[in-house]
Amino acid sequence: MNTSKLLHWEDVEVGTPNTYGAYTVTKEEIFAFARAYDPQPHHVDEEAAKLSLTKGLCASGWHTCAMFMRILYDGVLKNAASLGASGIEEVKWIKPVRPGHVLRARSVCTAKRLMNSRDGVGIAQMKHEILNQHDELLMTMENAQFLAVRDPAKARAEFKS
Amino acid sequence: MNTSKLLHWEDVEVGTPNTYGAYTVTKEEIFAFARAYDPQPHHVDEEAAKLSLTKGLCASGWHTCAMFMRILYDGVLKNAASLGASGIEEVKWIKPVRPGHVLRARSVCTAKRLMNSRDGVGIAQMKHEILNQHDELLMTMENAQFLAVRDPAKARAEFKS
Repeated sequence: MNTSKLLHWEDVEVGTPNTYGAYTVTKEEIFAFARAYDPQPHHVDEEAAKLSLTKGLCASGWHTCAMFMRILYDGVLKNAASLGASGIEEVKWIKPVRPGHVLRARSVCTAKRLMNSRDGVGIAQMKHEILNQHDELLMTMENAQFLAVRDPAKARAEFKS
Repeated sequence: MNTSKLLHWEDVEVGTPNTYGAYTVTKEEIFAFARAYDPQPHHVDEEAAKLSLTKGLCASGWHTCAMFMRILYDGVLKNAASLGASGIEEVKWIKPVRPGHVLRARSVCTAKRLMNSRDGVGIAQMKHEILNQHDELLMTMENAQFLAVRDPAKARAEFKS
């Protein structure tokens, strides 16, 4: 028996949203990330950004993904028996993420299943929303999170796939 | 008439792959990104990583996305009339990205269309593959890239949507 207190696959409740965060976005961090990875004008140049489709400086979409990951890690993954993920099904960058935004994530598991090819690995299908302090929806994301199963034999008996 | 030499929507050829890169992955950069955004053990702890599903230290999937973005920027976007993107349709993290990997991106436009809601904006539907120096496929990604249209009236006449 695994006595770990970590969140395992069995502990994830389908349909119950959880909220994680806050993460404050700074201009300095927007610049630093963008200079390293995405130096498009609307992420590194305030004057040029005013003339862009985003109508002002905003974080790289990939930076927003990274900040979301940190929110998720601090909120749940650091206390979970996480086994990572094999990808992302969809990301939508809905509104620009600005300096001064305070981000949080609202996450819900929409379905659970066991991995057929690997005993002891469970999959939680997740939908995530990233909002700011004004409750504006900035980004959505869907992905499949892998988690360790606490009792694989019992889980397999209960969750026929 | 826009005389810009930048790559515009009209210049994108459907079905012709382009290869961009190289980007050398270092252990130091894996650690730095992961400590900031994704401090799961297999990204920040070499010993713990050996026991993980990835069987050794590897880059955060989000870090790989960020490095891909830099490859794409240096390879094409910095000389393109890019208008950004509204999201990602799919990311698959196929194999771990390791220290010492030299990444390149192979990108192909699979379809083009004009944005109905905004004149002068074209959409290039892209498929990207990220490979290392051993030609191992590490990540795939699909997304819609927005580009400025050089001659919107002519484009609209030729590309009825």
